Amino acid sequence: MMKEQIKKWMQTHRQEAVDFLAQVVQAPSVQGREAVAQKLVADKLDALGLEVDVWEPAGEELVKHPYFCSPRTSFEGSPNVVGIWKGEGGGKSLILNGHIDVVPAGDFEQWDDDPFSGKVENGKMYGRGVTDMKGGNVAMLFAVECLKELGVRLKGDIIFQSVVEEESGGSGTLSTVLRGYKADAALIPEPTQMKIFPKQQGSMWFKIKVKGRSAHGGTRYEGVSAIEKAMIVVDAIRKLEKERNDKITDPLYKSIPIPIPINVGTIQGGEWPSSVPDLVELQGRMGVAPEEEMEDAKQAMAEALAALDDEWLAQHPPQLEWFGAQWVPGMIDSDHELMNHLIHSYRTVLGQDPVIEASPWGTDGGLLTKVGETPSIVFGPGVTSMAHYPNEYIELDRMIECAEIMAHTIMHWCGVANEKALSAKS
Amino acid sequence: MMKEQIKKWMQTHRQEAVDFLAQVVQAPSVQGREAVAQKLVADKLDALGLEVDVWEPAGEELVKHPYFCSPRTSFEGSPNVVGIWKGEGGGKSLILNGHIDVVPAGDFEQWDDDPFSGKVENGKMYGRGVTDMKGGNVAMLFAVECLKELGVRLKGDIIFQSVVEEESGGSGTLSTVLRGYKADAALIPEPTQMKIFPKQQGSMWFKIKVKGRSAHGGTRYEGVSAIEKAMIVVDAIRKLEKERNDKITDPLYKSIPIPIPINVGTIQGGEWPSSVPDLVELQGRMGVAPEEEMEDAKQAMAEALAALDDEWLAQHPPQLEWFGAQWVPGMIDSDHELMNHLIHSYRTVLGQDPVIEASPWGTDGGLLTKVGETPSIVFGPGVTSMAHYPNEYIELDRMIECAEIMAHTIMHWCGVANEKALSAKS
Repeated sequence: MMKEQIKKWMQTHRQEAVDFLAQVVQAPSVQGREAVAQKLVADKLDALGLEVDVWEPAGEELVKHPYFCSPRTSFEGSPNVVGIWKGEGGGKSLILNGHIDVVPAGDFEQWDDDPFSGKVENGKMYGRGVTDMKGGNVAMLFAVECLKELGVRLKGDIIFQSVVEEESGGSGTLSTVLRGYKADAALIPEPTQMKIFPKQQGSMWFKIKVKGRSAHGGTRYEGVSAIEKAMIVVDAIRKLEKERNDKITDPLYKSIPIPIPINVGTIQGGEWPSSVPDLVELQGRMGVAPEEEMEDAKQAMAEALAALDDEWLAQHPPQLEWFGAQWVPGMIDSDHELMNHLIHSYRTVLGQDPVIEASPWGTDGGLLTKVGETPSIVFGPGVTSMAHYPNEYIELDRMIECAEIMAHTIMHWCGVANEKALSAKS
Repeated sequence: MMKEQIKKWMQTHRQEAVDFLAQVVQAPSVQGREAVAQKLVADKLDALGLEVDVWEPAGEELVKHPYFCSPRTSFEGSPNVVGIWKGEGGGKSLILNGHIDVVPAGDFEQWDDDPFSGKVENGKMYGRGVTDMKGGNVAMLFAVECLKELGVRLKGDIIFQSVVEEESGGSGTLSTVLRGYKADAALIPEPTQMKIFPKQQGSMWFKIKVKGRSAHGGTRYEGVSAIEKAMIVVDAIRKLEKERNDKITDPLYKSIPIPIPINVGTIQGGEWPSSVPDLVELQGRMGVAPEEEMEDAKQAMAEALAALDDEWLAQHPPQLEWFGAQWVPGMIDSDHELMNHLIHSYRTVLGQDPVIEASPWGTDGGLLTKVGETPSIVFGPGVTSMAHYPNEYIELDRMIECAEIMAHTIMHWCGVANEKALSAKS
């Protein structure tokens, strides 16, 4: 039986997947430095016999696209990698999409080891990006490798995508769509911790400039501290977040403390210790509910900033700007055929029902759905709470289980051309 | 009479002083870029026949001195300028000390004109540094020039100092002391708005690191925001400031809203809009009362940070560091002879009593007093509230009045060798 063959192959080759993951983690693919890790992926796809397409996103069509959203317009040195496993016809196609870019490591002191160590201990591998989402990428690769090695011939196409720029707005995935890569559905193994996310929260980045009035620190009472005024703005954002989340009743969010959070991620202000700061800039990320229009969320933020209860801020309203990254919210029907195949495969491999929830963060699934007309499910092995965290890790058993579930799902969805021959063999 | 001669000379030559001030303001002498402005001063001193000494502060004795305090140890490109007008003997010497460095211009949008315009309108000149303290420096220069041109020969020496680095800890003035420049007393025309400050508040720069715990912005409830925790620290600093100021009873501070302020001047934290920030750094300036030991003030800050009412901060106490600049507090006796001469000269020129207060900020007077054994008075023409402010300006009439008062004070303090000849002439 194929089920046992897949399990056995994966157990036999497990160490190779772990070693490859370590290699990819040790290539610190923060924004602008993705090329080394992408080369590893491209070489692997080539070795598996896939048709490999490597390009740096560029061009007017991309940077002027209504859904283009990035802090940069040149992606030189940041290639996308796509590998195509052409099916033999008569089946449905599937995109396997994962991003290679990782967020910065943060304060190195909070890491027990080098943030890019790829160290394995007690069944866990550690490193920035291991959970978000290189472990998921290796699971997809491993699933494809397994089916290839077992001699499976698919009817539908597999389009394997290792994209840049997911962490800052999805231009990598947008570029794959514009290059013509679409499919009947997509799987995205972001770190859901083996939960299935049919709904994906959207999100957008904001910038808020808060003005003060400068003065000498020794006569600070003559000035107005932009830092103190920024504290009022941060409080108002907390209040807005609470109001928005109090309204969320979707049962898919029932176990998530803050379904659509508003994160203030950076603060910067003032130029001199002994001057009163006259400008503070906040940058952050606002969650957008799966059914919400992004424009409505923007409006809610603008209204909260216009309603600040402070005389100075009423006269000097904070300036709000939407910039850099955005992730379009997305959904797939709960009874979509790929959902059924994935749930079925999950039960086959793990002998229990999966947890089905809404994603607490945006993914490239929104772009695949809205621009690429490719409905997407997010399901992956990473530890959700460790994404963007010091000492980020993945449980390696989950990565292998995910690969196994994906191998089954691929066969069901794409269809197997040589089903009889395979059955005879086993 | 000399009184009328001085007044007349100053009125006749007023435009030259204004033009020279504009030139000096148009040379933006922010830290590290003081050389152009210093060249203007040195050339002027040379033209007046003073013996000019120009050097870049340097050497072990300076950077290892217990009172050395600077964010940098190399002052290449940042020369001090001293001009000596040697007296004929039998009189007391006087240091005239002013700093050439200016703080950064801040948010350019808050300025109506170019911050280094030196534009004159309605009797005011505008520009970064015009009040703090290039206008004071030109007043000292103008006083010296006036006495020179009127043929005055002094008994005591005048040591004219145009120093760097006052805005970041006084290494410029410290270097003059180590080079051997001391005197019987000093006048520092910092922007007191024609008030006389016999007491100078000290101050020190601090840095506070506040830790959080990083997480993905979409699951921000898994992390701890260092920005939110920094807000608690800023609140605690406000409280400490209030407690310290409630204790100040010195009548010299009676009209000052916050005698010894604690200014939080800069804030910086977080690396990514959609990550929970794990580190925020605050930088600021703490005022030290004239009679207070700097160590006691440091202790008070440390205790306030140790007593924060927050579980996370109790387990992750903010890290406090004293860095960069400090200004040693200083005092001169209220009945010191230079005080009497200055008050007398003020009355002579303006026909009324001066306001005598304590300085709301540190000056290089503390170093001159404590290290240079040169008791110092701060008295100058600049507008106190405009120091470090956008649209900084000076009232040009005050600059000329201050020069006139200084000319009288110099004659009284240093003594005039050719008094009879001058009287005969007038």
